[in-house]
Amino acid sequence: MAHIKDVEVLNCEYGKNTIKFLRLHREGKKHFVKEVEVCTHLRLTSCHEYLDGNNSAVIPTDTIKNIVLVLAKKNGIATLEQFAIDICQHFMTTFCQVAYVKTYVQEVPWQRLHENGIPHIHSFICVPNGIRFCEAEQCRNGPLIVFAGIKDLKLMKTTQSGFEGFYKNEHTTLPERNDRILCGELFCKWSYGECKDFDFDCIWNKIRECILEAFAGPPDCGEYSPSYQKTVNSIQMHILSKVQVIEVVLNNTFYNVVDMKNLGLTNDKEVSKCSKHNLPGLSLKILSLKA
Amino acid sequence: MAHIKDVEVLNCEYGKNTIKFLRLHREGKKHFVKEVEVCTHLRLTSCHEYLDGNNSAVIPTDTIKNIVLVLAKKNGIATLEQFAIDICQHFMTTFCQVAYVKTYVQEVPWQRLHENGIPHIHSFICVPNGIRFCEAEQCRNGPLIVFAGIKDLKLMKTTQSGFEGFYKNEHTTLPERNDRILCGELFCKWSYGECKDFDFDCIWNKIRECILEAFAGPPDCGEYSPSYQKTVNSIQMHILSKVQVIEVVLNNTFYNVVDMKNLGLTNDKEVSKCSKHNLPGLSLKILSLKA
Amino acid sequence: MAHIKDVEVLNCEYGKNTIKFLRLHREGKKHFVKEVEVCTHLRLTSCHEYLDGNNSAVIPTDTIKNIVLVLAKKNGIATLEQFAIDICQHFMTTFCQVAYVKTYVQEVPWQRLHENGIPHIHSFICVPNGIRFCEAEQCRNGPLIVFAGIKDLKLMKTTQSGFEGFYKNEHTTLPERNDRILCGELFCKWSYGECKDFDFDCIWNKIRECILEAFAGPPDCGEYSPSYQKTVNSIQMHILSKVQVIEVVLNNTFYNVVDMKNLGLTNDKEVSKCSKHNLPGLSLKILSLKA
Amino acid sequence: MAHIKDVEVLNCEYGKNTIKFLRLHREGKKHFVKEVEVCTHLRLTSCHEYLDGNNSAVIPTDTIKNIVLVLAKKNGIATLEQFAIDICQHFMTTFCQVAYVKTYVQEVPWQRLHENGIPHIHSFICVPNGIRFCEAEQCRNGPLIVFAGIKDLKLMKTTQSGFEGFYKNEHTTLPERNDRILCGELFCKWSYGECKDFDFDCIWNKIRECILEAFAGPPDCGEYSPSYQKTVNSIQMHILSKVQVIEVVLNNTFYNVVDMKNLGLTNDKEVSKCSKHNLPGLSLKILSLKA
Repeated sequence: MAHIKDVEVLNCEYGKNTIKFLRLHREGKKHFVKEVEVCTHLRLTSCHEYLDGNNSAVIPTDTIKNIVLVLAKKNGIATLEQFAIDICQHFMTTFCQVAYVKTYVQEVPWQRLHENGIPHIHSFICVPNGIRFCEAEQCRNGPLIVFAGIKDLKLMKTTQSGFEGFYKNEHTTLPERNDRILCGELFCKWSYGECKDFDFDCIWNKIRECILEAFAGPPDCGEYSPSYQKTVNSIQMHILSKVQVIEVVLNNTFYNVVDMKNLGLTNDKEVSKCSKHNLPGLSLKILSLKA
Repeated sequence: MAHIKDVEVLNCEYGKNTIKFLRLHREGKKHFVKEVEVCTHLRLTSCHEYLDGNNSAVIPTDTIKNIVLVLAKKNGIATLEQFAIDICQHFMTTFCQVAYVKTYVQEVPWQRLHENGIPHIHSFICVPNGIRFCEAEQCRNGPLIVFAGIKDLKLMKTTQSGFEGFYKNEHTTLPERNDRILCGELFCKWSYGECKDFDFDCIWNKIRECILEAFAGPPDCGEYSPSYQKTVNSIQMHILSKVQVIEVVLNNTFYNVVDMKNLGLTNDKEVSKCSKHNLPGLSLKILSLKA
Repeated sequence: MAHIKDVEVLNCEYGKNTIKFLRLHREGKKHFVKEVEVCTHLRLTSCHEYLDGNNSAVIPTDTIKNIVLVLAKKNGIATLEQFAIDICQHFMTTFCQVAYVKTYVQEVPWQRLHENGIPHIHSFICVPNGIRFCEAEQCRNGPLIVFAGIKDLKLMKTTQSGFEGFYKNEHTTLPERNDRILCGELFCKWSYGECKDFDFDCIWNKIRECILEAFAGPPDCGEYSPSYQKTVNSIQMHILSKVQVIEVVLNNTFYNVVDMKNLGLTNDKEVSKCSKHNLPGLSLKILSLKA
Repeated sequence: MAHIKDVEVLNCEYGKNTIKFLRLHREGKKHFVKEVEVCTHLRLTSCHEYLDGNNSAVIPTDTIKNIVLVLAKKNGIATLEQFAIDICQHFMTTFCQVAYVKTYVQEVPWQRLHENGIPHIHSFICVPNGIRFCEAEQCRNGPLIVFAGIKDLKLMKTTQSGFEGFYKNEHTTLPERNDRILCGELFCKWSYGECKDFDFDCIWNKIRECILEAFAGPPDCGEYSPSYQKTVNSIQMHILSKVQVIEVVLNNTFYNVVDMKNLGLTNDKEVSKCSKHNLPGLSLKILSLKA
């Protein structure tokens, strides 16, 4: 067994995951909802609870949860990003033993119901076509950095995608293709840099549009993608005019044209199968910076 | 160990689950996709494979899969329901050893992408706000029965819901409430009875609208729900004018108003928590028939 | 919209799912745990809550939960089956408006930790190699029926399994095989018939052993399985000497030998791939009765 | 839209996830299985596929998969760690365009079946009580580093755990407790440093034992844990005599004693409920280094 004095603590982070709640805001009879899932993690300036069993500096995760709920009640949730900023600032200014705080906020995608085009005053439907999230983090004496992003955004184009001219050797069995289905689940996360006075909702919506446009190309003809990498590049080039750093992860799903020759049929790419059921075949992660 | 002759086989059903594929249909440069997940199950007229290890009547699940793919290639998927009917009829007419066939088809909710209101010719986004499915089944010499439905439809109303006047005894701790959040995941399945010449797409869309209207009530004021049961009743009454039998399962999620008294705050139902994270608190299943 | 009087209610069942709790029992310093997940569903003698919004007969699911917890506290959980019986009997004898009650109990598979062969007095490890569950149900004036079972039991044999002599036609592409991997997830549920004085723990353990023996065959040579169906038959024959009815569901996973010819290698069935990742290829459900 | 020349690529990693296969090894009639899930990720020395759509340096993920399968066939899987090392070395020595390679290998926990104590020659049962994994990574011209670990290890002790003397303020509502249930899911990952001639199987088994002992304490009395942090410390101190760096993540599940006062009962900590169903309440990550 090692001795405490021989051990260096590199990282000691803890916090509350999945603080999930709904914040209801009323304007007259009209209701607005934000249901969120919050994770708040802390690093303390010392590790006595870990090294000596002395808990005197530890803020219980139950208290962390209470603080998040109290801030939601007092401030409301104007934007996810502002709420994450509020939480970080509260911990940094209230607790001198906090060396670092990080808060992740994710939104349940409730949309207002419409009946014959008329918005309903208090009814909502869950429409998970891309989940909005944000993150704020701060080290003591450092800037408060804000990130935002979209995840679980599933897109498909049924043509204008290929993969040719790749490296080949004796282990290569993949044929070259210039007309395949491109289908993937996108995760995009960008940094706003130091927290300033952004219109977070407006930028988020514009970036979501950019992603769709860059993925799909013009509506009447699309745009040829020579690789997943180039598609990610196209998405990033569209977005990097708006933000500083962007990370895109594309977990793609391969669709293979079913060979129907032994069933006596010619399959003109009409019937395809996912080669992996719900599991990504390729994982591609690119982090780029506006120079 | 029991003897074979002492044993009666009550049910012996087998089949292929999760035959998942994408059927691409092209009209000029415009692409249409149906990605589906099919399960086809069979009962044979005898059980020799089970009782004696004699496989001569067994249609391998690999063959079942091939047939489903071939039918998709040859017929296309005009509607989910027609495709399920095609599959059942194929098995019933091709294999005299099939006593019963059941086919379930579920659709991956791809929607065409739009850019500034213009539909894209070959790009799609996955929007899972209610999954469409259908089922067809047939016994030899019996009618072909068609079911359709919607599942994973998450709805919420933030007022106009209560639960009062229920049965009470010494184990009752639930308070009466006349203004609570109603939130649930709906599963609705209805029968078209014997297969006739229905416009399946049109009816499905109308029933989906009915469900939303019955759940939410008028857009300007909603409609008070005195229980989950009455809400399901309201949904069923709206739909039973269109179909014969309907089953509704409501797995609701409870939202409890967070008590903030010990935190020095009055919570006017603004901050609520799911009492169970992603787990249904109540399961309600009602099957009704148009008399 | 249909009228209430035109509608017949075929089934109206509700209840509380996932009442999950841990019951700690102490004998001196030695601790015993049963962590269970309980679902209790009811049918009432009338449907006024559904038809008229009159809740006076409705036992809230919150009360159902309280009763389950109170019974656990008062009676303990001697066996899962006895606990399910207790719950059913409580509802039937306490509430005259209950027409039918069903209770499902499932156990979290905690096992006592051992250090160098010595059992620990209060530490446990979760070992999910087959989940034990039971079910009890009763209609008013009917017998109380008890079921028990095991689920999520994953088994594999790497030889002594084949599938030959099956039905073939133009859609058959599956080759005959006499040496394949058999791998599946078993669900077995049996009925004890009317509730009598059984040693539920002892029988459950014996049946689990029977299943393993019937699946695997003798340890030194195994036993050839000509089909999944015959393997299920073998399992059922072993068990039907002990119980009256048994249902077995086998969701198998196919392992295909990887073709390495185009990579210049001969694969002597050494490298195989699941054809479906975590998704069952074949689903087989057989319900048999001791005649 | 940004210009390519204005963009700096910080990270561009891609690879194949979930290469899942089974390697069968035979010694006479006795069979040995290793079913693994492999992820292999690469960084290339340039990003032309991303920047210019030039794929000439890209090794397709399909080729990555082939290589992993070929190495499994040729070398077998003596230990997970050796297999991960083989894969990294293959990519580093074969492809000069690879700047970095990382391979993760995780094992499906098949255990040999025993009948009356006799090991079966070819039958196995899946026993997921802690999943073994390893990772190997290498930068060009850098050392090959090997990690190993265990995950999804669920442990519980029903006493000898408390949490007192923590920091309190107006948002604190958590009571102090000196006898609570401690239950969590452990993830432990350690580094062997540069790859040397370790007996990976032996060390892994010893470390697993250490973890159980440190968590549970002596079998006849246990050992008091004043916090999750101190329990993690205890685990790390036991292990850091054997390896250099260790990261432990404890996602704990809170069990709250059910208040039964309003049901007229005194609950002597006999009935507890998970406060979150299957969701970790607290996440604790500590990374320590042997100085």
